Amino acid sequence: MNVTVGGHTQHFRTVAFDAGTNSVRLIEQRLLPHEFKIIGTKNFPETANAIRDMIVRGAGAIGATAAYGLAQGARAFRGSDLDKFIAHLEIVYRALRDARPTAVDPVNALHQVISEMAAGETVAEKQSLALAAAEEFAREDVRHCEAIGRHGAKLIRSGMKILTHCNAGWLAFVDIGTATAPMYAAQSVGKKFHVFCDETRPRSQGATLTAWELAQQNISHQIIADNAAGHLMQRGEIDLVIVGSDRTLGRTGEVTNKIGTYTKAVLAARHKIPFYVAIPLSTIDWNLKRGFDIPIEERSENEVLGAWGINSRGQREFVRVANPASSERNPGFDVTPPELITGIITPAGIFKPKELWKNRRALGYAK
Amino acid sequence: MNVTVGGHTQHFRTVAFDAGTNSVRLIEQRLLPHEFKIIGTKNFPETANAIRDMIVRGAGAIGATAAYGLAQGARAFRGSDLDKFIAHLEIVYRALRDARPTAVDPVNALHQVISEMAAGETVAEKQSLALAAAEEFAREDVRHCEAIGRHGAKLIRSGMKILTHCNAGWLAFVDIGTATAPMYAAQSVGKKFHVFCDETRPRSQGATLTAWELAQQNISHQIIADNAAGHLMQRGEIDLVIVGSDRTLGRTGEVTNKIGTYTKAVLAARHKIPFYVAIPLSTIDWNLKRGFDIPIEERSENEVLGAWGINSRGQREFVRVANPASSERNPGFDVTPPELITGIITPAGIFKPKELWKNRRALGYAK
Repeated sequence: MNVTVGGHTQHFRTVAFDAGTNSVRLIEQRLLPHEFKIIGTKNFPETANAIRDMIVRGAGAIGATAAYGLAQGARAFRGSDLDKFIAHLEIVYRALRDARPTAVDPVNALHQVISEMAAGETVAEKQSLALAAAEEFAREDVRHCEAIGRHGAKLIRSGMKILTHCNAGWLAFVDIGTATAPMYAAQSVGKKFHVFCDETRPRSQGATLTAWELAQQNISHQIIADNAAGHLMQRGEIDLVIVGSDRTLGRTGEVTNKIGTYTKAVLAARHKIPFYVAIPLSTIDWNLKRGFDIPIEERSENEVLGAWGINSRGQREFVRVANPASSERNPGFDVTPPELITGIITPAGIFKPKELWKNRRALGYAK
Repeated sequence: MNVTVGGHTQHFRTVAFDAGTNSVRLIEQRLLPHEFKIIGTKNFPETANAIRDMIVRGAGAIGATAAYGLAQGARAFRGSDLDKFIAHLEIVYRALRDARPTAVDPVNALHQVISEMAAGETVAEKQSLALAAAEEFAREDVRHCEAIGRHGAKLIRSGMKILTHCNAGWLAFVDIGTATAPMYAAQSVGKKFHVFCDETRPRSQGATLTAWELAQQNISHQIIADNAAGHLMQRGEIDLVIVGSDRTLGRTGEVTNKIGTYTKAVLAARHKIPFYVAIPLSTIDWNLKRGFDIPIEERSENEVLGAWGINSRGQREFVRVANPASSERNPGFDVTPPELITGIITPAGIFKPKELWKNRRALGYAK
């Protein structure tokens, strides 16, 4: 999407590849919204670290980063010995796969690139195919988000007030995003609307990343405390909710997403406000049979006990807010049942959550 | 309640009066939970400032502070000229009343003290009666909270996990508190339970004040993000919700409380978890006929855009978390309808919200 830095507007992708220097180019997301900086990883261990350290985060974005990282590692190999190349590739694969062990997108991306490399007979051919496959993975991510935007834009009418939670914007993908894609598509045809961004404690991705994205695209928006949406719904000030998902069960229609999503779905149902989830095909889990079995990450980094921000001297700093003698309970995700979800916006169209399984062929189910 | 500072445990009230120095003694709540400090106001303008600047906050606590402030102002008068004394008292009254113009407790407290002073014929008698009336106002606040604890403790069984929102603890009253009163009473008879404190963004009174209170009383507790309660309820980890109230409509049973309370009530109803509101009689509004007419304060101090806490150098500091180009929407309260409330715990017993009006005589309705 377009970013304006120092008065200049330029198009950026969250993840890109520079073949000349064999480096993966990433937006340093930990500095946002206070600083916009592109970094280049010089080699595959640096790329793996960028995933691990959350320089890049979000389902599609870390998938594409892993794909490019594999191509980068393959292209760094010197020589023509195929056995040594395969052994080298194994090391690259493991480094990238293990950077975020719970995420499914990097694994899918790595397997897709490796599968495409099989057609090459020489090291050079395989190196070339690796880069082509990584580029295709990234392009497909963008195409999926564009399609989500096309389908989802129909839900948005001018004058609407839309609630979103966390960040499922272009920073979480290669470009465009999922929950934000309908907004960007609606804006492009001249619709005017207002977005409430849940701040999304404890990591505040709504207040930092989503608000930054919407400001860059000149979309009218305000940040609200996670406590406020219920009151706004009660007073008729929210017309539509769109969120993303980290894992959606294809068999049941249950949606795992950032903690707090379930609460917003319960509130939306009470107030008869449409509640949509936008997802790329890569986040559908066709195996699990019930949401209760989805492992919910319990984080323990004192996230709830304080906040990261910019202090009065312009420096990034953590402040401890909570009582020093108290501890936190910090589940990272929750599961929203299908009866609370109006529809799931996919690249293949909008489906009722319980209709995903029936439409599994169109949604990329390959078994 | 008891506070342990530097290894010594001592009983403190949130608000007290030192007749020898004619000063109101207050816990400096803005420093909590990081520092426990008692301050004494030397004269009534300092007392009014303590209310205005939120050194003391919470319905009962600012009511008692205003009552003591009026006695303090009356006692500072030198001479025996009744007309001059009345003129002086008028100035004191206005200063204390105007310190927090939207609060109803200080006004009630001031009128109660003035009414008791009428029985005195000389300045000295009126001065003496003022202090006696202020002390009685504070004692009644404590008695009310004790009675809430007695009634509410029956709701708590050992092993329960209890959710509370914001701070309706002893720091918000002269002692004991409202939402916390049943917990303290249950603990005193040996019941063991666990409390989840909503951090309560944007001002974080749950993470700071309630967590500090519970830690001081050795009550097992954890701070959670406001986003987390829905997930915990879904997994069967919350058995009971108790919150306070800033204004409860005696005619309808609607409850105004800190933003986010309504959301917790909606979630509790979905999960069939009992949801109780603990209130002193002074917060019942017998006049308003519908909750929609309750003015909801929209705050605009960038509270949602960042957080106050202690930095790595031990200093209190505000950090800006949110995107610098974005603004906030910040309603301070919300209204919970009676059908979501299991019961209202009052000093006169526990009532269904819609039964308040029927029981208005027992609840202090004086018209």
